[in-house]
Amino acid sequence: MIVVMAVSASEAEIQQVVAAIEAQSLHALIMPGGERVAIGVPSAIPPEIREDLAQTLGLLSGVDHVAHVSRPYKLASREFHRADTVVEVKGVHFGGPQIQVMTGPCSIESYQQMATAAKAAKDAGATVLRGGAFKPRTSPYSFQGLQEEGLKILRQVGEENGLITISEVMQPDLVELVASYVDILQIGARNMQNFPLLIEAGRSRHPVMLKRGPSATFDEFLLAAEYLLHNDNQQVLLCERGVHPVDRSYTRNTLDLNAVPVLKEVSHLPVIVDPSHGTGVSRYVPAMALAAIAAGADGLMIEMHPNPRVALSDGAQSLTPAQLQLLMARLAQLAPAVGRFVIPLTGGDLKPQMNANERG
Amino acid sequence: MIVVMAVSASEAEIQQVVAAIEAQSLHALIMPGGERVAIGVPSAIPPEIREDLAQTLGLLSGVDHVAHVSRPYKLASREFHRADTVVEVKGVHFGGPQIQVMTGPCSIESYQQMATAAKAAKDAGATVLRGGAFKPRTSPYSFQGLQEEGLKILRQVGEENGLITISEVMQPDLVELVASYVDILQIGARNMQNFPLLIEAGRSRHPVMLKRGPSATFDEFLLAAEYLLHNDNQQVLLCERGVHPVDRSYTRNTLDLNAVPVLKEVSHLPVIVDPSHGTGVSRYVPAMALAAIAAGADGLMIEMHPNPRVALSDGAQSLTPAQLQLLMARLAQLAPAVGRFVIPLTGGDLKPQMNANERG
Amino acid sequence: MIVVMAVSASEAEIQQVVAAIEAQSLHALIMPGGERVAIGVPSAIPPEIREDLAQTLGLLSGVDHVAHVSRPYKLASREFHRADTVVEVKGVHFGGPQIQVMTGPCSIESYQQMATAAKAAKDAGATVLRGGAFKPRTSPYSFQGLQEEGLKILRQVGEENGLITISEVMQPDLVELVASYVDILQIGARNMQNFPLLIEAGRSRHPVMLKRGPSATFDEFLLAAEYLLHNDNQQVLLCERGVHPVDRSYTRNTLDLNAVPVLKEVSHLPVIVDPSHGTGVSRYVPAMALAAIAAGADGLMIEMHPNPRVALSDGAQSLTPAQLQLLMARLAQLAPAVGRFVIPLTGGDLKPQMNANERG
Amino acid sequence: MIVVMAVSASEAEIQQVVAAIEAQSLHALIMPGGERVAIGVPSAIPPEIREDLAQTLGLLSGVDHVAHVSRPYKLASREFHRADTVVEVKGVHFGGPQIQVMTGPCSIESYQQMATAAKAAKDAGATVLRGGAFKPRTSPYSFQGLQEEGLKILRQVGEENGLITISEVMQPDLVELVASYVDILQIGARNMQNFPLLIEAGRSRHPVMLKRGPSATFDEFLLAAEYLLHNDNQQVLLCERGVHPVDRSYTRNTLDLNAVPVLKEVSHLPVIVDPSHGTGVSRYVPAMALAAIAAGADGLMIEMHPNPRVALSDGAQSLTPAQLQLLMARLAQLAPAVGRFVIPLTGGDLKPQMNANERG
Repeated sequence: MIVVMAVSASEAEIQQVVAAIEAQSLHALIMPGGERVAIGVPSAIPPEIREDLAQTLGLLSGVDHVAHVSRPYKLASREFHRADTVVEVKGVHFGGPQIQVMTGPCSIESYQQMATAAKAAKDAGATVLRGGAFKPRTSPYSFQGLQEEGLKILRQVGEENGLITISEVMQPDLVELVASYVDILQIGARNMQNFPLLIEAGRSRHPVMLKRGPSATFDEFLLAAEYLLHNDNQQVLLCERGVHPVDRSYTRNTLDLNAVPVLKEVSHLPVIVDPSHGTGVSRYVPAMALAAIAAGADGLMIEMHPNPRVALSDGAQSLTPAQLQLLMARLAQLAPAVGRFVIPLTGGDLKPQMNANERG
Repeated sequence: MIVVMAVSASEAEIQQVVAAIEAQSLHALIMPGGERVAIGVPSAIPPEIREDLAQTLGLLSGVDHVAHVSRPYKLASREFHRADTVVEVKGVHFGGPQIQVMTGPCSIESYQQMATAAKAAKDAGATVLRGGAFKPRTSPYSFQGLQEEGLKILRQVGEENGLITISEVMQPDLVELVASYVDILQIGARNMQNFPLLIEAGRSRHPVMLKRGPSATFDEFLLAAEYLLHNDNQQVLLCERGVHPVDRSYTRNTLDLNAVPVLKEVSHLPVIVDPSHGTGVSRYVPAMALAAIAAGADGLMIEMHPNPRVALSDGAQSLTPAQLQLLMARLAQLAPAVGRFVIPLTGGDLKPQMNANERG
Repeated sequence: MIVVMAVSASEAEIQQVVAAIEAQSLHALIMPGGERVAIGVPSAIPPEIREDLAQTLGLLSGVDHVAHVSRPYKLASREFHRADTVVEVKGVHFGGPQIQVMTGPCSIESYQQMATAAKAAKDAGATVLRGGAFKPRTSPYSFQGLQEEGLKILRQVGEENGLITISEVMQPDLVELVASYVDILQIGARNMQNFPLLIEAGRSRHPVMLKRGPSATFDEFLLAAEYLLHNDNQQVLLCERGVHPVDRSYTRNTLDLNAVPVLKEVSHLPVIVDPSHGTGVSRYVPAMALAAIAAGADGLMIEMHPNPRVALSDGAQSLTPAQLQLLMARLAQLAPAVGRFVIPLTGGDLKPQMNANERG
Repeated sequence: MIVVMAVSASEAEIQQVVAAIEAQSLHALIMPGGERVAIGVPSAIPPEIREDLAQTLGLLSGVDHVAHVSRPYKLASREFHRADTVVEVKGVHFGGPQIQVMTGPCSIESYQQMATAAKAAKDAGATVLRGGAFKPRTSPYSFQGLQEEGLKILRQVGEENGLITISEVMQPDLVELVASYVDILQIGARNMQNFPLLIEAGRSRHPVMLKRGPSATFDEFLLAAEYLLHNDNQQVLLCERGVHPVDRSYTRNTLDLNAVPVLKEVSHLPVIVDPSHGTGVSRYVPAMALAAIAAGADGLMIEMHPNPRVALSDGAQSLTPAQLQLLMARLAQLAPAVGRFVIPLTGGDLKPQMNANERG
């Protein structure tokens, strides 16, 4: 932390800053300059007083501003955890050489719909089935989801098709219920800073995929992940799903693929990309799915519906099973160019995370 | 709703769109044009099928795009509720001629802190006491609030000083608890689209102040209010608190005062402005509080702490009691220029929330 | 400047940074910390090497990032010019107690149109007449302006009505021409970083109003002003005209009134606000004009057209003469509440700035 | 164009709208609805009256708003030009199967620097040499470029190495000069709406690469391209270079790769991506270059400097020659997965586009 004094700051004001730093048993280092003085706090500042100390110092007279010189998150940072984290869920590894594809409809509508979707997902080579049971809808007049009945369907068709499952949980008192049905909890973009939910999802120790909020900075995103890690949940996937767009008239969001190299550098957690929400337009999904893999993403979440035209939600951004099949083939063709694979070659060159009967 | 066909659309494609509209028992009106055809749906579309129909039509072949011609919210719209809504809470009227000022610290820290704050609020002419008991903090390492103990303190000092109270609720299963202590529930910007919370707060029929999310469009904001209204809660205050800034290095947010004339025009609900979060810097708060009133806001939420330098949160944006006193005097001086008042003239046209000795 | 080393940085990497700093004849101060080392450059860094040094250091191995601790602009900063700058143009003072109102149509269309507008401006109490002769239009199919013919009209009707004039210049080779007709050169938001234009406008020593770009940070805005000041032009007005909006469907821009207290604090230059472009909707202009004055602006630029419905550009955001008259009356009523005035108390038709003792 | 009436609009107000439309010799189609009336203009509206008519109608009483149903650009639109435009510059084809890579330093600093850069570019397989002679710099204290002297160097080293050249032009009166030295004129992001420059660059009929402004919508971007096309210049390349970021602390911009599939769909012009400015950080450039190609871009602009640590500008985002070489190899490996190639298989130094059967 660096306290930058105003050009006009007096010696007494400088000493007041030094005293406030030393009152926290920290060392203060005065850096006289040509125009102004800066005062450094060159020790590790305990995270629980970091923000408050910065604020207190910022209010002292003669202080121009306070600059942080280190990032506010610890557990999510690669600086303190050099190796990539590989999250393993029932034999599916996120963060390893295989690109994992999560697919399925926005909303779970019926057993028949989900059975068709699951079979299409499996046939195309996806490993994770998605489907929403509790739906966050912008309008109170839109379909709100099948709730627990939907979770039952999701679990059943997942098991029938050898796919692990993911579904969104929206409130802390439902974490336990949702975790009892699905393999991965999804925390949606609108809930990225729903702290009671993060704490409860952390405590569940259930794998969690955390989506970035549409105007969240990387620090805010990684601090939200820190809530999960801090509550002793290490099975965390980060998901980029698009930020608030400059132009809402062509796409629903701006998929921020810069997030992929940034997050892979500063954090050790796996990074998933959701081109369906990131564009909002199904015909742009393949291009952006390919781009995400080229940028280094560890997985994809892609909406697919047996019949998008009758979907109860998000049909405009859903692929058909045939479109998914084609996209998976293109992903499989591209992945080796970046040292990854999408669909494992069975037999022969086995990847450690797989044995034959897990793949079916 | 207008379905705009591609330049290249065929007659068969046009007829397919017409059929899809008529399948919903709606009328379709073909508008032939020089280059392309548009197809209008000139009847009122039931809100529960509005989005889904738009999406379905958008996926038909030959369709360029679908444009909505009316706004998605109804109950929040002034078109169906011409008169201003005045929300009355224990004699305090929001949306009438008096500008209501809500003030107090970000976090409730102790009885002594709140008693001092409440007295300062009352002396300055504020009518509502704020204080956070459940705190949404970006970092898991920051102070998280006194929780129910804090609510007890807030209720007590509110009653001791003749102030109504407001505090944030962050999760649906705590709505009942928080409502049992405070007069107005606050739903924070990060929770603007926490739909389970909105539904529960709606059902409580307790007054609610809903803050706009930092990247929320007006439609999204008013649809969030619609969740409250749709659950039969008419006591809704809208609060603008700043949007995602172009430049985070000088202010924490960009206070969007355009929101005031826009919301006052399209909605009938009272509009509160929070210049403390809207700037994040206490020395900019007075200018923006004055500007908010000049723009037509019905009230203000202003953070004030007996001693901002030792505040456990948001000290940087909190006024001191003396700064609040001065600001209230300046607001009182400015309000008549826009036909409002801040502190009522006692005697004559008494407001129910006051008797002479409370105002002093 | 602070060079923050990575946690893993070696002693040799630290010494490499020190050497690079000392190679510029600057002093390097090593600040050992608990987790990482920071290296300060505690002297005034010459502005011409500031960015380049930061970049060079940032590329050295073992460096995490480089943080600036001071702002990049000098001449525009209040730190080196404590007193408010008052720009005087033919007796009209910007930055003093009088709020100056600039008004007139977006485009100069004819002598008759401008004569009517000028009379309306004068009658309402405005002091500056605006009108565009060279028009920046988003579409090549829109009206592009009367060019030099328009400037002649503007000068004539300004003189006939005792108003000073302002008009936009869009290219460096026209600075001299435009300056020969108008009293203040306007540099538009789209040209805020048109550096050849800034340099030429600086060299002209003609008064300039510089509009903030729609996504410009304050540093970028003040560095653009620095181009003018650095070329020896001290007669610079800053103009906030709205930033890129979160929501384009209700207003054309988001008027960032936070800019007013921020710019008044960090710079000594007068600040003008343009609520016409800042909203894009004439019926929101009065509320935001009032708010701008309440926030501390030194002047306003307001589009007014004798007949907005037939305007060749920007009619949707233009007031009628009657609306302007009413707004000026409301501004005059509000200004004293913030210690300013709009229309001086005078005998006859005199403007106070022509007669110092009238201000007192 | 659809004029949506307010719910409360009267029959007389509706007729006034119809009359205003018919006054332009256009047909008006009344669409009665359940709650409100909409009035369509089902004919092709001449572009020169489009915006003005919309504005005029929007100001009539009883009108809620006016919605455009078609895009404002024509010449840039794929609807009226179905086939991909391939821009050919001295045998280098943009928009065909070969991905063209433009590379070189931000600023031209010396013959020696450029000769080294050009050789490195050629060796790596790039086809276009870039270098800035007239530099747009945010700060007036930064290096401003070698100007005409730089252009001479660029032309010379381009010729010596068999590379075509590109350089930025910032003002209309220099278009002719810059065009006399370089093969492609670059119009920078800050000048995207510098209309005099667009007009002059259009008239030059010289190939132009137009960069998207950092907060430009797609309509604004394509209307800027329309200025070039409308002035009879068909040799236009579009360049996405990053939009205003949510978070400036990790990357300089947010590279908007959604722009690639969007622009390829709605326009026929080739699309280039600049990951150097799109990230601002050299170590993120390779990931985003690969992603751009995967998304469908027709070319890349990548900053490369023989020695980034001593670069006079943008060193932080420049690759070294060795990094470029490695990236080109990775691009060459990835391109076939999306049906493209980077480096043609040829005998000798032949460009493949001169020899169709080499592509196969």
